[in-house]
Amino acid sequence: MSGHQETPAGTPEVTRLLAEWVVELKGADIPAEVRREGLRTFVNWVGCAVGGARHETVDAALRAVAPFSGKADATVLGRPERLDAAHAALLNGITSHVLDYDDTHLKTIIHPAGPVASALLALSEIRPMSGEDFLTALIVGVEVECRIGNSVYPHHYDRGWHITGTAGVFGAAAAIGKVIGLDRQKMQWAFGLAASQSSGLREMFGTMTKSFHPGRAAQNGMMSALLAEAGFDSSERAIEAPRGFATVMSDKQDWNEILGELGTRWESALNSYKPFACGIVIHPAIDGCQQIREEIGERVSDIASVHLTTHPLVLELTGKRSPRTGLEGKFSVFHAAAAALLHGDGAPTAFTDDLVNDASVVDLRDRIDATADATCHEASVTIRVTFKDGSTMDKHIERTIGSSEMPLTDEQIDQKFKVQSALVIGEAATEKLLRLAWRSAELGDIADVARCASERAVAA
Amino acid sequence: MSGHQETPAGTPEVTRLLAEWVVELKGADIPAEVRREGLRTFVNWVGCAVGGARHETVDAALRAVAPFSGKADATVLGRPERLDAAHAALLNGITSHVLDYDDTHLKTIIHPAGPVASALLALSEIRPMSGEDFLTALIVGVEVECRIGNSVYPHHYDRGWHITGTAGVFGAAAAIGKVIGLDRQKMQWAFGLAASQSSGLREMFGTMTKSFHPGRAAQNGMMSALLAEAGFDSSERAIEAPRGFATVMSDKQDWNEILGELGTRWESALNSYKPFACGIVIHPAIDGCQQIREEIGERVSDIASVHLTTHPLVLELTGKRSPRTGLEGKFSVFHAAAAALLHGDGAPTAFTDDLVNDASVVDLRDRIDATADATCHEASVTIRVTFKDGSTMDKHIERTIGSSEMPLTDEQIDQKFKVQSALVIGEAATEKLLRLAWRSAELGDIADVARCASERAVAA
Repeated sequence: MSGHQETPAGTPEVTRLLAEWVVELKGADIPAEVRREGLRTFVNWVGCAVGGARHETVDAALRAVAPFSGKADATVLGRPERLDAAHAALLNGITSHVLDYDDTHLKTIIHPAGPVASALLALSEIRPMSGEDFLTALIVGVEVECRIGNSVYPHHYDRGWHITGTAGVFGAAAAIGKVIGLDRQKMQWAFGLAASQSSGLREMFGTMTKSFHPGRAAQNGMMSALLAEAGFDSSERAIEAPRGFATVMSDKQDWNEILGELGTRWESALNSYKPFACGIVIHPAIDGCQQIREEIGERVSDIASVHLTTHPLVLELTGKRSPRTGLEGKFSVFHAAAAALLHGDGAPTAFTDDLVNDASVVDLRDRIDATADATCHEASVTIRVTFKDGSTMDKHIERTIGSSEMPLTDEQIDQKFKVQSALVIGEAATEKLLRLAWRSAELGDIADVARCASERAVAA
Repeated sequence: MSGHQETPAGTPEVTRLLAEWVVELKGADIPAEVRREGLRTFVNWVGCAVGGARHETVDAALRAVAPFSGKADATVLGRPERLDAAHAALLNGITSHVLDYDDTHLKTIIHPAGPVASALLALSEIRPMSGEDFLTALIVGVEVECRIGNSVYPHHYDRGWHITGTAGVFGAAAAIGKVIGLDRQKMQWAFGLAASQSSGLREMFGTMTKSFHPGRAAQNGMMSALLAEAGFDSSERAIEAPRGFATVMSDKQDWNEILGELGTRWESALNSYKPFACGIVIHPAIDGCQQIREEIGERVSDIASVHLTTHPLVLELTGKRSPRTGLEGKFSVFHAAAAALLHGDGAPTAFTDDLVNDASVVDLRDRIDATADATCHEASVTIRVTFKDGSTMDKHIERTIGSSEMPLTDEQIDQKFKVQSALVIGEAATEKLLRLAWRSAELGDIADVARCASERAVAA
């Protein structure tokens, strides 16, 4: 039966105009600083995809999907297995998100690179493209994804949608559609196919299915563009129609967030990179505890108790008192603070089952408490340490590392890359890969990065 | 970040209890008349899948996905191409729905077989199963799909979700999970993965993406069960959680529709089969016009005008005055009535581009009008024909063919099967396939039906 309803008067032709922008944009139209942030986004993503490659989530996914893989054209970063490009997009989307260590568009909590870079790099192994064209498409995809996210945030997220999946599929469709040269109408169809596959629930957080979302968004976004290319048609107003994405999946629709200042306001340039392998609300506490550790050295063993004053969301989202697994540890500010004080660690190694159950970590964790303070900024924390002799010290973090005011430097991105990648492919291969990834814009064939990311990979 | 919220007190453990029922049910627990309806559902689906196989939608989908296919283990019914089982599920879900000629669970307007049978038959080509086990799993899948649909209908559909896709993915997951023997916990994970892929917008109606929905639901439901089998975990309360499927995607949640009378009330036994290749609201008008044609014979050419008195939904959904394509013809009660009066046709042949633009059809169509009457039942119509000599005749259809009160007989299912299948694989192969499909319950290997359905297929 028909579902056709007229678009309310005054609604702009969002899907058509966005498609037009994607199709017509030239790489040279993108300002240098935006291109630079696109490169940082890609380098950070490569490190995360390699870093997560041996996670049990990836093993389970491979067991299920490998028997269905087509021609083994494409790389699963950090793994010896090869899959067809669509399945490689799925797997790389999973690996890059599974450690909760990837990138964040802070306005929407979208993790932008997972859906977009995973689709693009996999496609590059069957349809060769230069590093320049790759970065242009990556930036376009992230821009589309974050703008669509902005248009429905926060209502959409609050309702329970995992926005990295639901908006990510549009980003992947835009990036692939750009790089394969879809015309405007086919780009609209690609958005229609993406809208009809937009999915992923926050209920899945804490399970393997969370990282499945950016993976499936990458795969489905890629196929949306390839179906449109093959003449598979769809609605041409999928975003703004009365029964389109924005109205069905959100009570808020701000079209200006999608269409306003296209080409001058760059959401993709606002991307940030996690310094720690967990949700961002917990980052100020880790940052502060690491700084305390550096300042007090041996006196860490003299700590009697620790009190955190945090934004209320910290306790709402990460208030778990007694985590039992590494994954649960990501949802315990108490564990994260203890690990940072005792080991200076906020990397994936801070969120292992072993460390979460380590006696000294548990002992300190149980002596940490926290108070929510609505006046505390989300990127801020105040920490009071009381020592066994009754003396105290206070540490105030005004803006945590990785926040928009304190972005990771290139060197910090390098450090983060090395720490996680070396555990999977070794230090020498990591150095080579890191250097190559920074040179992406100069590469004639961006797929070199994918191949390099698995050269030394061995089965987990 | 964590999305965990407590389930409100008093909410039953819907996902766990439904998974338990699926896992523990034995084929012998299903009453004979329910099994018989399951067989009719399957036979009808086979005819539709073969009948739709040469549609341009299928050609476009194959162009895009075939390069990504894995081992060519499975049949695309009615086509010479073979794909891996997951892609075959996608394609068969598309073919079986593309002519709008499939089955309907009237309470929810779900087209149940597309997602479920497409997944199961494709899987049977890589994991052999008997016809008995196949039919048990088919009935279980349809039951799960329709019950989940009931629990959120009509709000969910009214909001804009294409319920055949959104509920269908659960049905496919249940059917595949049943036949591969998932335990209860893994069946819960399969439902979680299905919930995170539940998607499809009504905005896509009138485009190729509409039939993509049952196809993707079949493919994604299959992979949900296979991922769970491989140890890929998910939420264990994906249906009822505060951020689960039913609350995120609907304002109505009636758990009793899912859990009530499990094993005694059979939604799958309420399945109906379309006598005409278009949305069901238009069926009474076609039925009535066919009966008028049979009664007046040659006098059809003496008709001056026709007036229909219909349920209001008929004009809301199929009120298109001047359709230009076969697809648009499905959304024009005026075209459908004219084709039925002039040619006695309501099959896919009534909705071709040629017939919609045929001069005599257009001429009569323009002399047909209609009035909405809120007291008219959805399965009813009153037709007044005025002849050129000023005389009139009235035809009242109390309940149309294919409605719950006037189900298609086995012979009518045969007839419908033959009309569409013969155009694709010829009459002899159609006869053989039809006989085999009715014998499904006796087959040691149900995949024989799939293979038989493509024996004589040639490229479109």
